Amino acid sequence: MASGELITIPARGGMAARLARGQSVKVINTHGEQVVDTWAFNARDLAEFLSLEHWRATLTKVFPEVGDALVTNRRRPILTLTADTSPGIHDTLIAACDNYRYGLLGCTEYHDNCTDNLFAGMRALGLVPPEVPSPLNLFMNIPMTDDRRLSFGEPLGKPGDYVVLRAEMDCVVAFSACPQDILPINGRAGQPTEAHFTIIDAPAGA
Amino acid sequence: MASGELITIPARGGMAARLARGQSVKVINTHGEQVVDTWAFNARDLAEFLSLEHWRATLTKVFPEVGDALVTNRRRPILTLTADTSPGIHDTLIAACDNYRYGLLGCTEYHDNCTDNLFAGMRALGLVPPEVPSPLNLFMNIPMTDDRRLSFGEPLGKPGDYVVLRAEMDCVVAFSACPQDILPINGRAGQPTEAHFTIIDAPAGA
Repeated sequence: MASGELITIPARGGMAARLARGQSVKVINTHGEQVVDTWAFNARDLAEFLSLEHWRATLTKVFPEVGDALVTNRRRPILTLTADTSPGIHDTLIAACDNYRYGLLGCTEYHDNCTDNLFAGMRALGLVPPEVPSPLNLFMNIPMTDDRRLSFGEPLGKPGDYVVLRAEMDCVVAFSACPQDILPINGRAGQPTEAHFTIIDAPAGA
Repeated sequence: MASGELITIPARGGMAARLARGQSVKVINTHGEQVVDTWAFNARDLAEFLSLEHWRATLTKVFPEVGDALVTNRRRPILTLTADTSPGIHDTLIAACDNYRYGLLGCTEYHDNCTDNLFAGMRALGLVPPEVPSPLNLFMNIPMTDDRRLSFGEPLGKPGDYVVLRAEMDCVVAFSACPQDILPINGRAGQPTEAHFTIIDAPAGA
């Protein structure tokens, strides 16, 4: 994918892209209410990947903030959150949805899901992820009460909100426009939408 | 291992055991200040395992409580927490420690760690885990502030505290007596100790 090109993550679908170290990816919540599950894998060894349980231990926080390096299961920075025009509500606690999840929610037929979207996005690059890491759920609102109860909240952003993630190593990023249409996580209407991303080259001389 | 036998998880070491559906394992914090990282794998397919990111989504909570089923990455119950004499402070947010972690903490030589203990414990049963799931960190005190900052707290229990986990499918459980001796997670003295477990048969007629 050429840098600067606006790439569509289709509604209910997945898409992956390669980033060279120093490049960034701008992930755009085009319509304002779409959760984008996000993964990152070391391009040279897919067994190293963004791991939120390792990141929480390293930075001792639950929500990423601008300036935070996101680390892998080998505790090395893979992405840095360098900009965020959204309210900054992203989730690190909840697994990617999968067909089992929709079965528990009452679906009796196959339902699009973020886990399969990860595989589909990577497959388009000729890659197979060795496992399904817990994703960084961009724009996903999981309120937590003081007694640590969670809920699936409505999104809090606006159309055009974006985050920028800078690659700290050559990596493959994968995105899923979450197909959840039963819980209000993608808006009360339960209508998942497309989202977009664009790759930004490193500044000259960087 | 015979049911009723008291098995030692050696200080800084790992141990695994098979549980038949309906059997329980009682995990004992023998000296009161020892974190025990805990994993569970489907005995028939190690690619299905206790997954805390799936569990948090299913039960919408961060800390397990007595009566909670703990689910796998296929959203099926694998263990149920049926008893807990500790203060009930267990962690689901923090990755198993590994040699990378101790490198970041200043160690220049190999340091025992829970990730390698998982592999060692499973290897003693002739098994290799296909990946390293985020563990259920029994007795581990990770305080969280209202702005979702985490810290590594001292343990809050007493010698002999225990939890009981009932197997909801034939499974392999693995334990690591966490070798962390730099942070106060295993007590201010930084002296990891042994812990114990025992397997309890299902009640007759159950």
